[in-house]
Amino acid sequence: MAREQLQALLKVCEFIANMRLSSATGGNFSIRWQEQALAISASGKDKSELTVDDFVVCDLNAKPIKDERRPSAETALHGMIYQMDPKAQCVLHTHSVPVTALSLYNKEAQKWSLTGYEMQKVISGFTSHEQTLEVFIFDNDQDIPRLAQAVKEMWPQMHRAYAFMVRGHGLYTWGTSVEEAKRHMEGLEFLFSCELTRLQLSRA
Amino acid sequence: MAREQLQALLKVCEFIANMRLSSATGGNFSIRWQEQALAISASGKDKSELTVDDFVVCDLNAKPIKDERRPSAETALHGMIYQMDPKAQCVLHTHSVPVTALSLYNKEAQKWSLTGYEMQKVISGFTSHEQTLEVFIFDNDQDIPRLAQAVKEMWPQMHRAYAFMVRGHGLYTWGTSVEEAKRHMEGLEFLFSCELTRLQLSRA
Amino acid sequence: MAREQLQALLKVCEFIANMRLSSATGGNFSIRWQEQALAISASGKDKSELTVDDFVVCDLNAKPIKDERRPSAETALHGMIYQMDPKAQCVLHTHSVPVTALSLYNKEAQKWSLTGYEMQKVISGFTSHEQTLEVFIFDNDQDIPRLAQAVKEMWPQMHRAYAFMVRGHGLYTWGTSVEEAKRHMEGLEFLFSCELTRLQLSRA
Amino acid sequence: MAREQLQALLKVCEFIANMRLSSATGGNFSIRWQEQALAISASGKDKSELTVDDFVVCDLNAKPIKDERRPSAETALHGMIYQMDPKAQCVLHTHSVPVTALSLYNKEAQKWSLTGYEMQKVISGFTSHEQTLEVFIFDNDQDIPRLAQAVKEMWPQMHRAYAFMVRGHGLYTWGTSVEEAKRHMEGLEFLFSCELTRLQLSRA
Repeated sequence: MAREQLQALLKVCEFIANMRLSSATGGNFSIRWQEQALAISASGKDKSELTVDDFVVCDLNAKPIKDERRPSAETALHGMIYQMDPKAQCVLHTHSVPVTALSLYNKEAQKWSLTGYEMQKVISGFTSHEQTLEVFIFDNDQDIPRLAQAVKEMWPQMHRAYAFMVRGHGLYTWGTSVEEAKRHMEGLEFLFSCELTRLQLSRA
Repeated sequence: MAREQLQALLKVCEFIANMRLSSATGGNFSIRWQEQALAISASGKDKSELTVDDFVVCDLNAKPIKDERRPSAETALHGMIYQMDPKAQCVLHTHSVPVTALSLYNKEAQKWSLTGYEMQKVISGFTSHEQTLEVFIFDNDQDIPRLAQAVKEMWPQMHRAYAFMVRGHGLYTWGTSVEEAKRHMEGLEFLFSCELTRLQLSRA
Repeated sequence: MAREQLQALLKVCEFIANMRLSSATGGNFSIRWQEQALAISASGKDKSELTVDDFVVCDLNAKPIKDERRPSAETALHGMIYQMDPKAQCVLHTHSVPVTALSLYNKEAQKWSLTGYEMQKVISGFTSHEQTLEVFIFDNDQDIPRLAQAVKEMWPQMHRAYAFMVRGHGLYTWGTSVEEAKRHMEGLEFLFSCELTRLQLSRA
Repeated sequence: MAREQLQALLKVCEFIANMRLSSATGGNFSIRWQEQALAISASGKDKSELTVDDFVVCDLNAKPIKDERRPSAETALHGMIYQMDPKAQCVLHTHSVPVTALSLYNKEAQKWSLTGYEMQKVISGFTSHEQTLEVFIFDNDQDIPRLAQAVKEMWPQMHRAYAFMVRGHGLYTWGTSVEEAKRHMEGLEFLFSCELTRLQLSRA
């Protein structure tokens, strides 16, 4: 089962690389591996060329299991998501120009509110463009456990979006399957491209 | 005949997916299937991987014929178009960033007028850039029969564009063949990209 | 010789289609065919799928030679270029969003002046970014012979750019070989993308 | 060893061409060839179709070794980088719309400062988004030895970015391997796209 999910994730990684959402070896991608572990892409790899061997199995505190490779520092953020949402099966962390630019638009903003878009309905639980989808923004921090703690504290208010942004850094999205995580990621990247485009329109 | 059209539509769906006009399983695409029916892409599918089996045959009121799958809620909008235009053979519903952003630019606007573009001539019936091509915008509505009714009431004024927008949602285009529908769709997406780009220019 | 050029042109047409410079069957592309004729792409075709049989041989006044197909109305503009520049071997007419938008930026402008770009040097005869490259803009006209006449009258002032724009319509470029025409076209599309991008920057 | 690097560089050249960073035969790419030489892409070639035979071996003053082809005038800039940084193994010179446009945004600016981005960490030696990454901008000059001299004089202040811009022209990046040079180039092109996008946002 987990192996099938890993195959599905490899295909999503290739799609992400082709869409230019993981420039310069950026981004990291994982699936839950049995109950209390995760398998995450090794850092420093071109995401269009990943194979099963490029994934490291860690416990949910980011410690590698039977593996001598050190996983990405951001593994702790993935682990936190799997701990907070017992149904989460896949976490995708992308780096796009629109998300990076918008997260820096107002450096004090704690969230970006999306409303009026049909595309909001790709997020599980949303059924109308009239609802408001709030994507929280956390300040970037090189101390990943501290960043994970900040997200954890906001969890009750933020988890409905299945996503959050890290300022000047990128987007985290997840889902109850690889397929759902991909749909959430693609929908949100589309929505943030729309928001960016609207902000680029001159006021008549 | 209808089967050949379906093959042509599959190719157009792949083109649409590659152009990023159907992000996150969005959009839906149909052909007329005999006089009083239509075949529409099943929802929730990646549009670059559709096969003949991913199409559901429904009557023009969106009720499936000999099929247990439930088609997309928006099937009723496709059916309405086939009812209003007896020559329509193909309907394409795309989701692009430019159309989504422009449809929200002025939330009161009932239409977007295009003039001065050579590309207007790709719409059947238009012969000069000096004509005005009016693409109507309808407010999005999760009640699809009510949305279809709103379009129907505006039909006499709006049908010449072979297209309309749904605000914050996307573009509907059609034609008397798959080929013509594709040409209309591609031409309109180009035109709206031009309009968007012009609105992004700073006033000197 | 002409047949080899035609093979080279087919490859350029595919490149142009992939770069989205000929949306919705737009654009047309030709080579000189012997001294007093030209071979031009048939209109209404998807430019990524052209074959040798999709080219129509016409005299330089746009009259087909031994061919019953009617070539594009714009063939007369191609013929005019081959008449005015005896060394011209290939003419490319593309439709891009940047050129279309810029040509409409100032509807009274008769030309767009480019200076300060290294890329200007891809135009034959230009050796420094300090020179000024003037690309003339002609108002669009559905009467093609009249448009061709307008270009002809401006020829002594405009031909150095190996290109001109038609307002709200697109770009014409040419060269003494298919390769040179492609280089001119690609360089100019890059330059106009730069100009557009600079105009989209907010003034601090 | 050098031959393996050349194979890696060919793959990077193809990537660069596909990302549209070397329009119209622009750009040039080299590796160090033994201690005191370099192998550089011949000018005027389509970068997606380079082979081993399209590289010219020159000494670090840009003089060809056992080769009758004349290398690009900009070879002297590559040679200067290999002389100034004894560890440099690969130099990439790309032409992108964002870098070209930004370098002309303020024509007096001597550098572009990047801060607040996680992506800064792809540059070797940078460990936090809180650091400032300064990319120097040199005025374009058709006299390449003079331009190389200008860069050389600024070297102590500028080399940490593993990159510099030439105004209205493009970006030079390098690294201690082909892989590192590519990562630097991709990261910087991403960062400049972010900067450009932020400058295109209207102030509310």
